[in-house]
Amino acid sequence: MPKTALRITREQNFADWYLEVIREANLAEHSGVRGCMVIKPWGYAIWERVQRALDDLIRATGHDNVYFPVFIPLELIEKEATHVEGFAKEMAVVTHHRLVKGEDGKLVPAAPLESPLVVRPTSETMIGESFARWIQSYRDLPMKLNQWANVVRWELRPRLFLRTTEFLWQEGHTAHATKEEALEETRQMLEVYREVVEGAMKIPVIPGTKTPGERFPGADETHSIEAMMQDGRALQAGTSHFLGQNFSKAANIQFQDKDGETRFVYTTSWGASTRLIGALIMTHSDDDGLRLPPRIAPRHLVIVPILRGGDQDGKVLAAAHALAQRLSAERWENEAVRATVDTRDINAADKRWEWIKKGVPLVAELGPRDLESGSVALTRRDRIAEKKEILPIETLVGSVGSLLSAFERTLLEQALAYRAQRTREDVADFAAFQEFFKSDDRTGFVIAPWSGDPASEAKIAALGVTIRCLPYRQSGRKAPCVLTGKPSVTDALFAKAY
Amino acid sequence: MPKTALRITREQNFADWYLEVIREANLAEHSGVRGCMVIKPWGYAIWERVQRALDDLIRATGHDNVYFPVFIPLELIEKEATHVEGFAKEMAVVTHHRLVKGEDGKLVPAAPLESPLVVRPTSETMIGESFARWIQSYRDLPMKLNQWANVVRWELRPRLFLRTTEFLWQEGHTAHATKEEALEETRQMLEVYREVVEGAMKIPVIPGTKTPGERFPGADETHSIEAMMQDGRALQAGTSHFLGQNFSKAANIQFQDKDGETRFVYTTSWGASTRLIGALIMTHSDDDGLRLPPRIAPRHLVIVPILRGGDQDGKVLAAAHALAQRLSAERWENEAVRATVDTRDINAADKRWEWIKKGVPLVAELGPRDLESGSVALTRRDRIAEKKEILPIETLVGSVGSLLSAFERTLLEQALAYRAQRTREDVADFAAFQEFFKSDDRTGFVIAPWSGDPASEAKIAALGVTIRCLPYRQSGRKAPCVLTGKPSVTDALFAKAY
Repeated sequence: MPKTALRITREQNFADWYLEVIREANLAEHSGVRGCMVIKPWGYAIWERVQRALDDLIRATGHDNVYFPVFIPLELIEKEATHVEGFAKEMAVVTHHRLVKGEDGKLVPAAPLESPLVVRPTSETMIGESFARWIQSYRDLPMKLNQWANVVRWELRPRLFLRTTEFLWQEGHTAHATKEEALEETRQMLEVYREVVEGAMKIPVIPGTKTPGERFPGADETHSIEAMMQDGRALQAGTSHFLGQNFSKAANIQFQDKDGETRFVYTTSWGASTRLIGALIMTHSDDDGLRLPPRIAPRHLVIVPILRGGDQDGKVLAAAHALAQRLSAERWENEAVRATVDTRDINAADKRWEWIKKGVPLVAELGPRDLESGSVALTRRDRIAEKKEILPIETLVGSVGSLLSAFERTLLEQALAYRAQRTREDVADFAAFQEFFKSDDRTGFVIAPWSGDPASEAKIAALGVTIRCLPYRQSGRKAPCVLTGKPSVTDALFAKAY
Repeated sequence: MPKTALRITREQNFADWYLEVIREANLAEHSGVRGCMVIKPWGYAIWERVQRALDDLIRATGHDNVYFPVFIPLELIEKEATHVEGFAKEMAVVTHHRLVKGEDGKLVPAAPLESPLVVRPTSETMIGESFARWIQSYRDLPMKLNQWANVVRWELRPRLFLRTTEFLWQEGHTAHATKEEALEETRQMLEVYREVVEGAMKIPVIPGTKTPGERFPGADETHSIEAMMQDGRALQAGTSHFLGQNFSKAANIQFQDKDGETRFVYTTSWGASTRLIGALIMTHSDDDGLRLPPRIAPRHLVIVPILRGGDQDGKVLAAAHALAQRLSAERWENEAVRATVDTRDINAADKRWEWIKKGVPLVAELGPRDLESGSVALTRRDRIAEKKEILPIETLVGSVGSLLSAFERTLLEQALAYRAQRTREDVADFAAFQEFFKSDDRTGFVIAPWSGDPASEAKIAALGVTIRCLPYRQSGRKAPCVLTGKPSVTDALFAKAY
């Protein structure tokens, strides 16, 4: 087996490998607060690039950013019965607004609140209350808002980026005059997620609708994009909810239409979170660490100067900075190439491996001998196993864009390939289904006909399998339901999920 | 008295006028949660521009963005005694992580936490705990982090943007090997605040150091920039703290220096918040509403098409969009001019006044007659009282940059003028001092010699006056202390404050 940069490989232990990628790329770590993570500079820089990509499209589709309070009064969150039921088990509750010293000198909560406040797990109820005040007439519609915020859902089995008590996300909330328009919005925003996740992050996804049992609490429809991780498990990478009139009736959000009739609005909500970083890691990383799709990479190329402590060092550093400047003047995908010099006082080989593990697409080493020949030693993150390429500086500058494009293509192709390899569309009956999923390490996607019977979903729960979505793209085949043998009404995507 | 767009003028009631500006510009409102505000699209768009200006400089000075948990364990926040004392009275406390239905069907908190969590009022203690783990050697220093986050300080007398229980801010936290370097960082970041507040927001400020009684809880030095609002009161617009070794000793943040000695680091922290929007409003707005400095304005110029419902409307709209496009191709201060067409279905005069009250620098009306003459009717936000200017479209396109520059200059000049008018440097003794500040509506800045005696600060508290800062710029005069007649050691800035 070839030597790898990580101490744990995917094959050895996928869960531990995941944590090793995060540790070695210095992305995040658990804090002293159970379930809450610290997002470190490299992890946060990646998140900021994901944010930018999402925010650009959220604006381009006509939404305004806003900010609503982190605290929600109990009486507000109680209004939509299904909603509160879905979240009650995981809500952090503020009960006091002061601390005083107790008899033992330790601080204890004082000044109890008249009514407790919930730390927002999501903001439908909070924003609905404002919609009810702000929306009077059809002229006020559609109202299309988005907020970037932290939310809290108490997590008993936390996992960095995937399940954390506190996480960062954007949540969109919109109100519309008609059902059709709200449904159109729901689908449009799922498409925005698909564009960012597949387009910028190069994570292939399957868009579809959730079954009633898997819907967001209080939604009439939930749409999601589902990605396959390298262990064959599914990860939900973004959801968009058509809330019908459930929240508008609970919060009394009414408007006067053109005919003077008073009607309830239709609302939607949609969210994507720091969980996307988890998806990114488990889609693209290898046994040498993280691999970052260039549109999301905080740096495209890092130059590692090889310094010997001699009088050549000044020249090498000057050449490295000159090269960084030339590369930064190049453009790729409408942005400047992000090139920097790593000037830290540690040895060059360690630097090179650090940037490899951090997932930077290209690392260029530049030493005294390269100076003479006008070349660099290039490491391409998708070709670690190969020898470094000795490249004239001119060639590097001229081809940096196409190198990034090639790397981006490779990431998507590899992700598509392992998904294809672990997806079965020919599983015909429940015996074969059980065979496919029977032990914990048997994972992958099964796309197969389904009867639509909710009872059959309970049947597969014992296998740890759920219906991830009913894909938009349907085969149209008339085969019997894979779970029950009854007539089928739709194709469903079955998998074990994060 | 001339008619104004607002129903309340500054002279009538400054506090009510402030709220009226916010209401009419649609910036924010109180939520159902006591002390928490909802920041609406226009208010949030302004905040995003302030954020961008700050973030650019925070990065340019070598800081990395990160994210730390919103919850802080009690045992952590207790570690620095002065710090916790300063914040204990205003901390929101999470005590439970679940809700269940009580006997009356109402939700009640369940699953009490073993140890309560505080919703962060600021993150020195939380980040200090990580510094202690991350910093081992002098090679790890300086460590320079920043986070954009929401914080909570329970507020009994809330006021939109100025004092809210929850607010948005950035908080910088750095660790250094030497005292000198930490002091240099403290001053550098105050200068960053000055650059954004004075440079981009056009709010003139006086930088200086706080007296011991006015310092951040746990700081050895607090530096601040102080602005004068139009009612003559001071507003602290940004603070930067030299924390010495207080937090490093409390959290045990040690490093090995080059000689192998183990030492405690020196830390700093610095923050600026949504309070800046309050400062913006009270510095630049007039009795017609908000006035936005162009670098912070979400839009520079709004085109209001005058539509009569006839067959000319199509042409007018087309011309309006063509003009917006031409203006958007112009650049001002290294950015594209932000020009849009207001196509909403309401009448043109209402639109014009709405944009005036929202503070947009330029409003251009374009009707069928203007189409023939190739001109627009321009309203300059700094010259509302004058007649609209009829301007050839070519002239507008050619001069939009200089119009914005002129507007920006006017805002700063007017702010400097009212500050100069209400600042006295010749108040010589306590009798004159009392005379200056004696009633609640007697406000303004007094810059005068001070003895440095803390007891004398208590003496002026009864007047509602505090020492805002000891200005960096000192007169050097040897006159006796204005409060005590004793020998003075410094000039101090005295004022009533927000």
